[in-house]
Amino acid sequence: MKIKTVSKVLSLICLVVSFAMIPPLCLALYDRTTDASAFAISILAGIFMHIILSWNGRKNSISMGIREGVGVTGFSWIIASALGALPYWLAGLVSYTDAFFETMSGFTTTGATIFTEIESLPRGILLWRSLTHWMGGMGIIVLSLAVLPFLGVSGMEMYKAEVPGVTAEKITPRLHQTAIRLWGVYVALTLAETFFLFIGGVSLFDAFAHSCSTIATGGFSTKNNSVAYFTSPYIQWVIIIFMFASGVNFSLYFMLLQKRFRDFFKDEELKYYALITVSAAFAMSIALYGAGMFRGIEDTLRRTFFHVVSVMTTTGFIVEDYNLWPEFTKFIFVILMFIGASGGSTGGGCKVSRFLILGRQLKTEVWRLLHPRAVITARMNGQPIPRGTLESSTAFFTLYMWLFTISTLITTAFGIDVLTAFTGVLTCLSNVGPGLNALGPVENFAWLPSFIKWLFSFCMLAGRLELFAVILLFMPGTYRK
Amino acid sequence: MKIKTVSKVLSLICLVVSFAMIPPLCLALYDRTTDASAFAISILAGIFMHIILSWNGRKNSISMGIREGVGVTGFSWIIASALGALPYWLAGLVSYTDAFFETMSGFTTTGATIFTEIESLPRGILLWRSLTHWMGGMGIIVLSLAVLPFLGVSGMEMYKAEVPGVTAEKITPRLHQTAIRLWGVYVALTLAETFFLFIGGVSLFDAFAHSCSTIATGGFSTKNNSVAYFTSPYIQWVIIIFMFASGVNFSLYFMLLQKRFRDFFKDEELKYYALITVSAAFAMSIALYGAGMFRGIEDTLRRTFFHVVSVMTTTGFIVEDYNLWPEFTKFIFVILMFIGASGGSTGGGCKVSRFLILGRQLKTEVWRLLHPRAVITARMNGQPIPRGTLESSTAFFTLYMWLFTISTLITTAFGIDVLTAFTGVLTCLSNVGPGLNALGPVENFAWLPSFIKWLFSFCMLAGRLELFAVILLFMPGTYRK
Repeated sequence: MKIKTVSKVLSLICLVVSFAMIPPLCLALYDRTTDASAFAISILAGIFMHIILSWNGRKNSISMGIREGVGVTGFSWIIASALGALPYWLAGLVSYTDAFFETMSGFTTTGATIFTEIESLPRGILLWRSLTHWMGGMGIIVLSLAVLPFLGVSGMEMYKAEVPGVTAEKITPRLHQTAIRLWGVYVALTLAETFFLFIGGVSLFDAFAHSCSTIATGGFSTKNNSVAYFTSPYIQWVIIIFMFASGVNFSLYFMLLQKRFRDFFKDEELKYYALITVSAAFAMSIALYGAGMFRGIEDTLRRTFFHVVSVMTTTGFIVEDYNLWPEFTKFIFVILMFIGASGGSTGGGCKVSRFLILGRQLKTEVWRLLHPRAVITARMNGQPIPRGTLESSTAFFTLYMWLFTISTLITTAFGIDVLTAFTGVLTCLSNVGPGLNALGPVENFAWLPSFIKWLFSFCMLAGRLELFAVILLFMPGTYRK
Repeated sequence: MKIKTVSKVLSLICLVVSFAMIPPLCLALYDRTTDASAFAISILAGIFMHIILSWNGRKNSISMGIREGVGVTGFSWIIASALGALPYWLAGLVSYTDAFFETMSGFTTTGATIFTEIESLPRGILLWRSLTHWMGGMGIIVLSLAVLPFLGVSGMEMYKAEVPGVTAEKITPRLHQTAIRLWGVYVALTLAETFFLFIGGVSLFDAFAHSCSTIATGGFSTKNNSVAYFTSPYIQWVIIIFMFASGVNFSLYFMLLQKRFRDFFKDEELKYYALITVSAAFAMSIALYGAGMFRGIEDTLRRTFFHVVSVMTTTGFIVEDYNLWPEFTKFIFVILMFIGASGGSTGGGCKVSRFLILGRQLKTEVWRLLHPRAVITARMNGQPIPRGTLESSTAFFTLYMWLFTISTLITTAFGIDVLTAFTGVLTCLSNVGPGLNALGPVENFAWLPSFIKWLFSFCMLAGRLELFAVILLFMPGTYRK
């Protein structure tokens, strides 16, 4: 690994994070709250880190190989979280462990929080929480598709580790332009949601903060009761629609911009993503309506759709304590946490496309048992699935299960019950936010032992970067020249 | 599918099951218990079924293809359970649903029971329970390796569905002879354990019944408290050793008979099987000893080794209510239930070898990320893993997860809590016996709704026949000529 090349990129990351702290600083100064100095010091720390790293960095980083790509990918989230944690810590709100957890949860768009009392936090801090989500989401979509190649990472190798899809469609040869367009979609979605929430009576600050969380599929709210604070059905439906939209592969929006409507609607992942959402929500609605838990059909549908979409897209907003719902619905949530959103979206989880690939392969294998001499290939979107994609998907699931099992085992070793540990690790690996039991929707992560907070931070990072980039950070081979 | 060929084989199965009821009948007559007539009628029913099926069957079933193989495999366990359930039902002990569940649990060597009070059952019935295990275990090992090919199933295709390993080593071209030798090993192990238990002070009846359960990795006991009834450490260690031995690939014993000691000890699956057992047991011992739950080191080691081996080999014998153990140890049991024993043993689960294959493939994939141009193949026992084996292992895991998830979902829909449902389905799919929570080691399956009993029976069957044979039964293509 060329340390200097990696340093150069990381120095830019520090600068970006510092710049992003300027709006919260301004808000803190405007509100005359005590967190202003915390932001000011953090910005200076970021600029200092930028100088140190770029001092060591090469001026013109021309070529970046797979090793540098891995280094940049893994370390950029870590350094951003280390720096972004400073305001919480310097403002004297929490310990550094908690601050790091909260920031990692922000940048990985997880939304698990260690704050027990949110509404009493200064607005600057609340804005910063939402901005970490927003930048993290944009990071996942844009950084990997455009910024990194622009900095010198050539070829498509990087996508293996970074793009949240299984195969990155070569949308256009001019990646820089693509990045700007994707960014445009991202900004447009955020502004649109802010607008729709604002006209629904939400204050501009809350509307913007919730929009940042929604489009990044994060889950941080500015309210103690999350979205349950906004009782208006209109507001909840707006959030449902925008959450769902954020779980769609962003390259499909690119197709829409190019007026390739047929390709858009023929996309198999989109179909299954919608199908799973709708069927899970209807199954739950029937169970909950039968149990007489809510008032009327719209109320039931809204609450179930809200939570199905919130969990499936790995956002993690809450309108109800579904920890009290029937066991059947709780298990559906566990399944949805595993599945996650579409590849190429801001959502986490294993991704619908990977499950599709596994399913297609299973179908092929069963067929092959009955017709041993037939030549058949698994297909997706009409294209045969390349062998490499099949094998990397399998490897992904194996690694996911490994990390999941070992992390759960460690968590139970701290005396935490199996269901809490199981869903806690799952919610972090899939970047959802809330789990079940003692980490349920109305609980928070503050009570966890410090070691488990660091473990969960690692899980969030690993899940967000599609596992491999993080695993490679631990392999000596990555650091060889 | 040639129905007549399948009928012919099934008619023989009916005859075998009927013959196996003769010893319990004799015991019932000797004890002058009321179940004698139940056995007599069941034997007649079996002979009647034999006549009906062989009437329809072809006299000389020369050729059996993959479709007939699937039919024989799947239906033989079903017909054996349907017939074997008669004694319980006719003796007026339980409903037919419960009787079928108990018999399927027996023939699939699961060991989950619906009987709440075991010691009050007549000895004939208890012997029959143990014999269903013993026949089931032998069925898995011998039927598939020798009887089916002898009846006309040519080639190695059958092993894909039936042999509990991933690839069946071509032990010798003369399969019939192999079968008899494997049978010899099986009988020898049973007799050896009976002897060692008998000299430890166990009655001949109990010693034989427990040996049948052990070697088949079943789990039915003749005592309410399972093996906890025998408080002697000697007896418990004997059972631990024989359980462990039954979880070893039986073709390795064949190697021992051929004095190929080097091949035996070089076998990677055996190594990992032993490694997982020992490390899980030691980790648990430390946790339990630290918690001060048992008296002294031997006591702790014996109890942990007993349960680790019992769960890992999917036997399901019990000396302690581990539902009350720390969360950490409970989660280890869940992991062991997934893993299961070695391929080619009488044990269930996903098998150590399949996990080894997945692990090797993951290693290869990670290596490939760093060295995109290198040509590397995953290996096991020094041999490259064929692509077909990799893909069928992946398909196995996908199918396992599918069945597991859907069955758990259905179970929770009946209002059963997630952990009970989760471990209940798992224990059936992996043919272990006990689960956790309301299906824990000191509980039983009697309280489950009828529908769930049928679902669990299906899971036991699917797990025992390595999933594919059972899935193919539901595909119309299987019945085409």
